Amino acid sequence: MQARQALEQAEVVLGYKTYLRQAEALLKGKEVIASGMTHELDRAGEALDLALTGKCVAMVSGGDPGIYAMAGVIFDVAKVRNIEFGPGSDQVEITVIPGIPALAAAASLLGAPLTHDFATVSLSDRLTPWELIEKRLHLAAEADFVIVLYNPKSKGRPWQLGRAMEIVTESRSPETPVGVVARAMREGQSVTLTTLGQVNEADVDMQTVVIIGNSRTYTYQGRMVTPRGYLEKYPDAV
Amino acid sequence: MQARQALEQAEVVLGYKTYLRQAEALLKGKEVIASGMTHELDRAGEALDLALTGKCVAMVSGGDPGIYAMAGVIFDVAKVRNIEFGPGSDQVEITVIPGIPALAAAASLLGAPLTHDFATVSLSDRLTPWELIEKRLHLAAEADFVIVLYNPKSKGRPWQLGRAMEIVTESRSPETPVGVVARAMREGQSVTLTTLGQVNEADVDMQTVVIIGNSRTYTYQGRMVTPRGYLEKYPDAV
Repeated sequence: MQARQALEQAEVVLGYKTYLRQAEALLKGKEVIASGMTHELDRAGEALDLALTGKCVAMVSGGDPGIYAMAGVIFDVAKVRNIEFGPGSDQVEITVIPGIPALAAAASLLGAPLTHDFATVSLSDRLTPWELIEKRLHLAAEADFVIVLYNPKSKGRPWQLGRAMEIVTESRSPETPVGVVARAMREGQSVTLTTLGQVNEADVDMQTVVIIGNSRTYTYQGRMVTPRGYLEKYPDAV
Repeated sequence: MQARQALEQAEVVLGYKTYLRQAEALLKGKEVIASGMTHELDRAGEALDLALTGKCVAMVSGGDPGIYAMAGVIFDVAKVRNIEFGPGSDQVEITVIPGIPALAAAASLLGAPLTHDFATVSLSDRLTPWELIEKRLHLAAEADFVIVLYNPKSKGRPWQLGRAMEIVTESRSPETPVGVVARAMREGQSVTLTTLGQVNEADVDMQTVVIIGNSRTYTYQGRMVTPRGYLEKYPDAV
């Protein structure tokens, strides 16, 4: 709702072309600047340049713009360039409008795997040292967090997912439920329920979210559910 | 959008009264069953009973129904009662419709604190042993995850938040940015930016989300931002 209003008000709309296509109906009569993946810094700088000319500018993200997405990059660039965006600034005003994150969309299609504590880890080592990613996977697995993997695999990063599965398997059973959701809520959606020991890496690409259950996550009638613990606490209530 | 359609179709709507009030305009002419907090198992059972009579039933959650919310409880109860809900079942059909989780709404108001890996931990020890919560906090802090605290404090649980802050401070500077957001996007919203060493527990109640930055999270012009790492990797790009 808030996102729709912002798009309606915008004079210029920027974004990755796949996401702009989903908002096509709202873009008529506007200046539209579509881009490919990567070049995030350029895109953020361009949006800020346009906003500094006084235009109302919208940057479109898939899912939620604040979760592994463009909101942070825009603030980073504004900071480095000393652009004033705080309350009362007459340079630019930056507003982040939340959306439904890929993790929530994926979870809803699988059942209810995120009803208890979870950790999200991006497997992209383009900007983060692989050692830190491995450390986070080890500790998240040890803590029995449900684990959500973002950016699990791409053409240039073929082996990271397999290694991540190995790490989690060190402290979790190969029978642990795993949900693999690609392109949630958009064209080409696919939802696969499997186990830690049986994940088919061919089902996974850059537009996939992988959710690994915790030690209590179960599957039942095709759904993946992490119990909050009501029935353990009140076994005679139902 | 999908949530609105589901409410329009529903003949019976159940939910916690605060959340039902927000959807009031969509409830006219429907059977509405409001409840207080707790009694989650009863509420889930009642929804399933009504659905088994052939009625179209909606259960309303705040934020996203799959993140620490009712979706999991409904599957739990359906499982214990051997209710068939899988594809093609003629008993009931269960659909989870995602929403904007409290963590995403809170993050958007603070700036962009969730642009990198994060862990969410509920401090409620009503159903989870406190030892497990402490273990997760220790490991999440050691992994340098941004940490999102759900259910940080209530009248019956006054000391857990202070203890959580102590644990995180063992491996993170007291200068680490912390965002405290209550009632994001609804009446009584409050947004506070502070540090790990300065959190005022009086700002925090059961309807608050607390976001603790990682070792790289910064604040600038009143916003809290966790960088993804573009500028460290490409320092001359801007």
